[in-house]
Amino acid sequence: SHSFHVALLPGDGQGPKLASYVERTLNLIQHIRRDVSFNISTHDFGGAALTAGAGTSLPPSTLDSCRQSDATLICQCGDPRYGIKPEEGLLILRKELGASVNVRPVRFPSSQVVQQSAFRAEVVEQLDITFFRDLTGGIYYGTKQEAGEDGEAYDMTRYSRQTIQRLARLAGTYAMQFTPPKPVHSIDKANVMATSRLWRSVVTEIFSQEFPQVTLRHVLVDTASMLLASDPLSLNGVVLAENMFGDILSDQAGGILGSPDILASAAVSSLDRSSISPGIFEPLNLKPREKLVNPLGMIQAVGLMLELSLGLSAESDALSKAIRRTLDPVELIGSDTRTTDLGGTATADEFMDVLLHNLDYYLEAVNSAQL
Amino acid sequence: SHSFHVALLPGDGQGPKLASYVERTLNLIQHIRRDVSFNISTHDFGGAALTAGAGTSLPPSTLDSCRQSDATLICQCGDPRYGIKPEEGLLILRKELGASVNVRPVRFPSSQVVQQSAFRAEVVEQLDITFFRDLTGGIYYGTKQEAGEDGEAYDMTRYSRQTIQRLARLAGTYAMQFTPPKPVHSIDKANVMATSRLWRSVVTEIFSQEFPQVTLRHVLVDTASMLLASDPLSLNGVVLAENMFGDILSDQAGGILGSPDILASAAVSSLDRSSISPGIFEPLNLKPREKLVNPLGMIQAVGLMLELSLGLSAESDALSKAIRRTLDPVELIGSDTRTTDLGGTATADEFMDVLLHNLDYYLEAVNSAQL
Ligand SMILES: CC(C)[C@H](C(=O)O)[C@@H](O)C(=O)O
Ligand SMILES: CC(C)[C@H](C(=O)O)[C@@H](O)C(=O)O
Repeated sequence: SHSFHVALLPGDGQGPKLASYVERTLNLIQHIRRDVSFNISTHDFGGAALTAGAGTSLPPSTLDSCRQSDATLICQCGDPRYGIKPEEGLLILRKELGASVNVRPVRFPSSQVVQQSAFRAEVVEQLDITFFRDLTGGIYYGTKQEAGEDGEAYDMTRYSRQTIQRLARLAGTYAMQFTPPKPVHSIDKANVMATSRLWRSVVTEIFSQEFPQVTLRHVLVDTASMLLASDPLSLNGVVLAENMFGDILSDQAGGILGSPDILASAAVSSLDRSSISPGIFEPLNLKPREKLVNPLGMIQAVGLMLELSLGLSAESDALSKAIRRTLDPVELIGSDTRTTDLGGTATADEFMDVLLHNLDYYLEAVNSAQL
Repeated sequence: SHSFHVALLPGDGQGPKLASYVERTLNLIQHIRRDVSFNISTHDFGGAALTAGAGTSLPPSTLDSCRQSDATLICQCGDPRYGIKPEEGLLILRKELGASVNVRPVRFPSSQVVQQSAFRAEVVEQLDITFFRDLTGGIYYGTKQEAGEDGEAYDMTRYSRQTIQRLARLAGTYAMQFTPPKPVHSIDKANVMATSRLWRSVVTEIFSQEFPQVTLRHVLVDTASMLLASDPLSLNGVVLAENMFGDILSDQAGGILGSPDILASAAVSSLDRSSISPGIFEPLNLKPREKLVNPLGMIQAVGLMLELSLGLSAESDALSKAIRRTLDPVELIGSDTRTTDLGGTATADEFMDVLLHNLDYYLEAVNSAQL
């Protein structure tokens, strides 16, 4: 029997509501799967921590609990009343937990979602890109100077050989888990940036020495951005990028799905499936909303946690199946359980009720199969 | 009678072929419009200059001629045999000519092109974004350090109040030329970068003081990238961005059109339509090709030059009409004049022959209207 510590950070906006959905989901899993249990603790974070008087968006007690947990789940972050302070807490948390790589899968959870896309259905049904984005370096963490008297501001981006090596190895290891190995597209702006030239040479070296079976292609960031608009499938496989380019391109790819609330994002330091690898899991879009429309991104974050951090692949599979079933067309399942951003009429609560009902079913199926 | 000096820089790949199309186009205009004449001089540039033994991708004589011209046209740039040297010449040219703002209109030249897009037709037929991108600053021109022994590289991005003010004024002036004024979307990453925070505050100041009638919206670069994928029309109007963000987003927007060879890009220092404003004009995609498929981007660069630098709006209108006519469906014009990248069967030569035939017609129409 496994007991997992999960630190739950509701944060801003609709975060508390999303956190309650996470609890319901994990409670259901531990209820049905008797050998799995979750020890969930909830902590102040983001604007909510500032409102609670913590004086910081990442209180030391929150950081400590995340450090001691097997996984951290963040719901929303960025209360506009506090300027950039909430996001600062997020960036410090990522850094402190050593969550060096951001894994962002971009694929449709259900072909029913295709009709919400601005893209032609035939172009995107096959979309299947996994972004590997560095989270520890680049312009996010370089020296910066706010404009003063002289009216000049600057930001620095910096990369070291080791940082790039580590990320390239994680992407290569992941690509090799598939047969045939997934192709890797490495992003840079080597015709302009010194860090990009280092990036390109280190990535080339790692792949030729350690992953010769993986097809590696170097793509300029502007070309990648154009390809994701003109021919997204040409980047299917793994996209490997530094922090800022990965931020922009993965959001662009997510946008192909039409709703910002469908995908999730993981930050981990290793991809070892045989042991627990602590990580941070978030919906792709963390921005606080007025109203909660679609909790799917949050639930997908739970799925990524089960799969990548906790090694609970049967449970994560059951969750994926439950999501797909819940998004099935009205004609098939008798009621409209798609939320309004996906062209349906269901509220977030209604969606969750049906999702948990379906999850119950698929978890029981796992139990039966194991009898 | 006006005589214009045009510096023509064929550059690499298919550049010489494109340059010959430019000459045919300008010769036709001066032949039919007797009060307009072009003095075209051709100069070595890019990898071609290196091959010719100039020892640099931007020979001093080329730079001088561009300085003395009313406009510069670049065809292709980036012979891969010379690494980043050809692009270095391009960046120096932009800087030396003081071409501070890059104007990149993204709209379909003909609704016939819509079917080549990966996007649904109804989503993109109305696409109409004009990018205003800074060309003088940012990470392109900041201090950089290649990785040495220590295995660390860095790049610096820097912005000054004045640079941002100048760009914001150009974008505001342009937005005000329309009734109602076009909305302006200003791009930054103010939650992470100091330069972005300066950017946001200066842009806010200039628009509230000098262009209060213009609707200004601040959009984070990752959000903008997502919106261009999920709902491109929401960014219709002007998009105002620093050098790197403008590079990425304008290429993304261009990708919506399906072919990389449809659009053009202008670099100018002012937008005064009552006098000549020297500028640099290029196809959006400068990358050298093995084979010339579609010269449309180059011809659109000529159109931008006529309109923005030379003040020849009647001639630029005629060229737009000729392009639209040439892209009309086979059923209407009796032959397939679309190039293969647009789903047609025409060669670049065939496309140009019909285009010039149509241009002849529309230029004569201008003459008649002025009798
Ligand atoms: C909130 C912001 C700082 C963050 C980032 O840029 O990393 C977000 O956009 C993300 O991608 O998770
Ligand atoms: C060739 C390259 C240096 C250039 C740039 O990044 O500015 C190109 O991508 C462009 O946008 O004109």
